[in-house]
Amino acid sequence: MELTNWLEKRVRLSPKRTALVFDGKQETFSEIYDAVQKVAGQLASFGVRDGMFVALLGKNDRDTFLMIHALQQLGAKTVFLNNRLTATEMGYQIRDAQVERCLYAADFADMMANAAGDVRAVAFMEVMMAESSGVMQTVSHFPMETVASIMYTSGTTGKPKGVMQTFGNHWWSATGSMLNLGLQEGDSWLCAVPIFHISGLSILMRSVIYGIPVYLEEHFDAKRVDQFLRSGEVTIISVVTTMVQRLLDTYTKSYHPKFRCMLLGGGPASKAILESCFAKGIPLIQSFGMTETASQIVTLPPEDALQKIGASGKPLFPAEVKIGEKKEILLKGPSITVGYLNNETATKAAFDEDGWFRTGDIGEIDEDGFLFVLERYSDLIISGGENIYPTEIEHVLLEHPDIVEAAVVARHDDRWGQVPVAYLVTTKVLNQEILALFCQLRLAKYKVPHSFYFLKALPKTASQKIQRHRLYKNDL
Amino acid sequence: MELTNWLEKRVRLSPKRTALVFDGKQETFSEIYDAVQKVAGQLASFGVRDGMFVALLGKNDRDTFLMIHALQQLGAKTVFLNNRLTATEMGYQIRDAQVERCLYAADFADMMANAAGDVRAVAFMEVMMAESSGVMQTVSHFPMETVASIMYTSGTTGKPKGVMQTFGNHWWSATGSMLNLGLQEGDSWLCAVPIFHISGLSILMRSVIYGIPVYLEEHFDAKRVDQFLRSGEVTIISVVTTMVQRLLDTYTKSYHPKFRCMLLGGGPASKAILESCFAKGIPLIQSFGMTETASQIVTLPPEDALQKIGASGKPLFPAEVKIGEKKEILLKGPSITVGYLNNETATKAAFDEDGWFRTGDIGEIDEDGFLFVLERYSDLIISGGENIYPTEIEHVLLEHPDIVEAAVVARHDDRWGQVPVAYLVTTKVLNQEILALFCQLRLAKYKVPHSFYFLKALPKTASQKIQRHRLYKNDL
Repeated sequence: MELTNWLEKRVRLSPKRTALVFDGKQETFSEIYDAVQKVAGQLASFGVRDGMFVALLGKNDRDTFLMIHALQQLGAKTVFLNNRLTATEMGYQIRDAQVERCLYAADFADMMANAAGDVRAVAFMEVMMAESSGVMQTVSHFPMETVASIMYTSGTTGKPKGVMQTFGNHWWSATGSMLNLGLQEGDSWLCAVPIFHISGLSILMRSVIYGIPVYLEEHFDAKRVDQFLRSGEVTIISVVTTMVQRLLDTYTKSYHPKFRCMLLGGGPASKAILESCFAKGIPLIQSFGMTETASQIVTLPPEDALQKIGASGKPLFPAEVKIGEKKEILLKGPSITVGYLNNETATKAAFDEDGWFRTGDIGEIDEDGFLFVLERYSDLIISGGENIYPTEIEHVLLEHPDIVEAAVVARHDDRWGQVPVAYLVTTKVLNQEILALFCQLRLAKYKVPHSFYFLKALPKTASQKIQRHRLYKNDL
Repeated sequence: MELTNWLEKRVRLSPKRTALVFDGKQETFSEIYDAVQKVAGQLASFGVRDGMFVALLGKNDRDTFLMIHALQQLGAKTVFLNNRLTATEMGYQIRDAQVERCLYAADFADMMANAAGDVRAVAFMEVMMAESSGVMQTVSHFPMETVASIMYTSGTTGKPKGVMQTFGNHWWSATGSMLNLGLQEGDSWLCAVPIFHISGLSILMRSVIYGIPVYLEEHFDAKRVDQFLRSGEVTIISVVTTMVQRLLDTYTKSYHPKFRCMLLGGGPASKAILESCFAKGIPLIQSFGMTETASQIVTLPPEDALQKIGASGKPLFPAEVKIGEKKEILLKGPSITVGYLNNETATKAAFDEDGWFRTGDIGEIDEDGFLFVLERYSDLIISGGENIYPTEIEHVLLEHPDIVEAAVVARHDDRWGQVPVAYLVTTKVLNQEILALFCQLRLAKYKVPHSFYFLKALPKTASQKIQRHRLYKNDL
């Protein structure tokens, strides 16, 4: 099962509709298509071709937007690098994915120099100055089962795994969302979440499938976004909790009546935030999703938003949810990943014998069929929309010669929702600042513990498993 | 690939939304679901079960609506009988499809008595008075590749063939349409086209997939429909040309601004009709489709309706169109039939070596990618939205002992668009009325020629093929 190359199809259907609004400039699908074809030809001259794994280190801007589409046109599989990672972390992903080319924005040149290793790394600028290859060949079709994108997530094991997202995963996610939220004339989607995350990339995919503009924002600027929401230009926005809080802080006047959905992902909002939104008539739609589900898979239908505060919603039309053993949330549906790249073991472990995907998160389904997420994977820390897996940080801490035991847990933070903090058992007294530096050299900044606490021993179960929940609750 | 049973999924997602409005009564998805479950249990007590072929002879009413859904719940494959056919024609389809049960509305009891043969025929009434079977089992999932419905069409050969429509065909048709027309809050679809045709059945499928009401009308009553379109209750309607003409004749006041789409299928509209609609601000959307494509597959995007008068439009997002040899319109896409039931030869003949479906219709694609249908399958007669294949009528005429040669062609008709007329070579003078009666006993009324003309010889090619086009143009 395959469909015509989506961008090609879209430009045939509606060439004159707006595709991208970036930095105050509007471009139609026809203009974007031409720009993408040019970049595809240039990428081809660097040897990028059908089936090749290519790492992309960009940001929320037009160049990265063009690169993403150009790679798809060529049939390359894009490995999205989170630009907040360290060179060590990126290097791991580049090697693990057996990437053959690395592409990077100028800002990240030093980073890439340290990360790429033997792999040929090419700056966006270099691509865009190059001659187009005469032998450039774009793909005529997007087969549903073909992997389009890879995004790394640490998951419960702490070792990053490359989530494979097929064209089918993206397609079903987009159409599933449309069946829930509808598709209205004049719709447009504001993307201030990173396009190297599925929350952002899924907006780009929807834009092409629906034929609607992406308002791409390089950073989340509450004042700018506030203006967009008041103007009527933007009808849907994807946000994480910290963005909602900052929008509420900025809020002075009602948003435009055409603004119809503030889609909240990446961790739950507090009841105070929800109530504040409802009081202001802000159409906040809660959702639950993962990199493995190609974005939201459980969403609160608009008509239930007021009745079911705190619920994540119901599974989208193509998806199914059930509660498994130990209240684990299990998922099924065509938007769910086909597995982890080059990691058969992790792939097998992620699905039960009936093909249900194990989220590792804990939840309940009420009598009306609404999912309530009680705890995301119990040890997961969500900081400003980024997932932080304690095990990954603990592994780094344990590399320190004087650290014997380490446990990382979340601490509440007004700005970021949560931040990581570390509990340590050490052989001698260690300096907090030096420890932070030790972590910074090895971990993305948002993963570096905000505090280090020293204990004589960590709380453990009878079988010597560290009880992170007792640390989190300060139950020592 | 399979999805949760659609009706079950829909009732879980939005139980309180309106599903059906019939005869002034509204019912929610929850109410419809309960009624359907009851009928499914009753059908089970007559032995209807998963995988069984069941012929359905109903009309546009609530009982038939419930039967259609109940059969789907049980996993039965519904063979839709056109209630305008003769018993002989129905009998052929019942035997050809190897149907195991026939279900019929009370009005058609005599007809069914003559058509069913050895097959057990059960009246709707009998079903609905029965005790529910204790062993009733509904299907939990709708696999995309499973055949859900069969509709007979004569095609170019004149011998009726059962078009198999899978759940996947219906799904892709519905989502493809949504990507073109959007899905807005408050949407509802009026169905005054027969639900035994794909134009009607596809509305029922969309209703469940989208979660919107069907306004089901037993007959097309221009005054009633006019009121619906003025009320704002109905936002979309499917029509054939004769309905548009009758609505224009009835038209006195503007339709409601919420009414956003009059989807025209089953043959082209004249330029006069199109211009009259545009003058009145009626949002007429032209489309092209067949039983084999699970309804519209080429549709004129709303933004192009005014610029491209006469065009059928562009293929829906999941579909592709191209022009083959002799300007034949060729189609590809996931809404296209998997083939004809128990007729491997016809299935093979319908696709070219690259899997393109041969429509038999003639067309062109302009430089902007719009399809213009120049002629539907050149000999096809479209009368009030019903397809009439000349060969079928000619075969019947040739059964008459005194008819030597027969050719049937279209004649323009103000009310029906076209009607069939017959050109005959006979051994003696025959009476027109007796000939009409002869046909009426063997053919649905709309297929009976309106006139019979007697010639000494039919115009033929060198290879003795009858030149119907010369008869049509009166070029004798």
